[in-house]
Amino acid sequence: MRYELFYWPGIQGRGEYVRLALEDAGADYLDVGRGAPDQELGVPALDIYLSGDATPRPPFAPPFLKAGDLVLSHTANILQFLAPRLELVPEDENQRYWAHGLQLTLMDFVAEIHDIHHPLSSALYYEEQRDEAVKRAALFREHRLPRFLEYFEQVLEQNPGGADMLVGDRHGYVDLSLFQTVTGLRYALPRAMRQAEDDLPKIGALVERVAARPRLRDYLDSDRRQPFNENGIFRHYPELDGEL
Amino acid sequence: MRYELFYWPGIQGRGEYVRLALEDAGADYLDVGRGAPDQELGVPALDIYLSGDATPRPPFAPPFLKAGDLVLSHTANILQFLAPRLELVPEDENQRYWAHGLQLTLMDFVAEIHDIHHPLSSALYYEEQRDEAVKRAALFREHRLPRFLEYFEQVLEQNPGGADMLVGDRHGYVDLSLFQTVTGLRYALPRAMRQAEDDLPKIGALVERVAARPRLRDYLDSDRRQPFNENGIFRHYPELDGEL
Repeated sequence: MRYELFYWPGIQGRGEYVRLALEDAGADYLDVGRGAPDQELGVPALDIYLSGDATPRPPFAPPFLKAGDLVLSHTANILQFLAPRLELVPEDENQRYWAHGLQLTLMDFVAEIHDIHHPLSSALYYEEQRDEAVKRAALFREHRLPRFLEYFEQVLEQNPGGADMLVGDRHGYVDLSLFQTVTGLRYALPRAMRQAEDDLPKIGALVERVAARPRLRDYLDSDRRQPFNENGIFRHYPELDGEL
Repeated sequence: MRYELFYWPGIQGRGEYVRLALEDAGADYLDVGRGAPDQELGVPALDIYLSGDATPRPPFAPPFLKAGDLVLSHTANILQFLAPRLELVPEDENQRYWAHGLQLTLMDFVAEIHDIHHPLSSALYYEEQRDEAVKRAALFREHRLPRFLEYFEQVLEQNPGGADMLVGDRHGYVDLSLFQTVTGLRYALPRAMRQAEDDLPKIGALVERVAARPRLRDYLDSDRRQPFNENGIFRHYPELDGEL
């Protein structure tokens, strides 16, 4: 099956979590949002779905995935659908609920990371909420960053299948998502992450392991991998990293 | 099966979304967090799981559910697990992915509703971030409140199974969650909701329909239903409702 991924072009965003799973599994997919409008791709192709014209069940926002007749939205929901098909989650049903709960925890973390540069509203520019962002970011670095990261370090430590992966005894999709989140945080908050990572050896090892997977390494080196930038979730503003 | 729901006592919070499904279905469940510590219930019973002592797979935060050996976290994940067992979602797999995507959209909405009174950090009191909250709430009322509500109105309008429910042609768990969210918003932002609801007849009808379901009405009238208050997600602060 050729999957169709719908996500805004120009940023990694939440779409990247889906891309990493597809790329790591070597799946056949079309990155609709990055295609050309004169080929019925690009942003207009997304808009047809978001408006409710293409389906009576319109997604609220990208990313969404088309798989045959099924259109489904939300990063964690898409990954839950794809993972068994891409062999990125154990067979056992209980393990799948556990994996999905971890993925939802990561998506909560991602939402909080986004809001450090947009504490008031996504309808305003960063520059219009910079003062509030500086306050929110300091509190995030103090409370939330260690809370989330230490949780995932503990999950790795306690995983009955081994500390190399989050779920079961094989590499899986939640590992890819943790990789993406930590990589993004290193870009956005290098100073805070240097301090935090001293106490997170298992997360560090997981990120190294994932980055060395052949298909993923090829993807990260290709121009299919868009760079981090200041339009996405993970933005590097030195003042939000405690450099004033 | 007797389900065990773990959630903080004293607030409806995200736990209420799970309670409504259990109550509407007449399921047997134990509300662990509201029990007495001398019966090994209450907050200490939650802490044993959150610390990682009770299971190698600790939840990050409440709510979480114990069903036999399975412990699973995150409101939408719990509801996805319960819904087939409580007959609150269609059999069809595609409809289940659609329902879960809608539920995740609602949970995103709930997170944004929470953050109007806590735009900087949950580690600070409301009074310490009141000025920022007034700004965030005004932008929320202008942009996000109509955006989310109009989306759900459209989903009802376009539902091939009928505008009385969000998914398929029968009452289901996402209807209960929309009911809870709208009811909470009417408590928190009565002024903004009076204006918004003029254009949301189908949501209004759904809320009325759900409230009239016999088991749910009994629950809402019982003391198992905790009142809304200013510790939960939906808080009524007049200054956040545009009354200055």
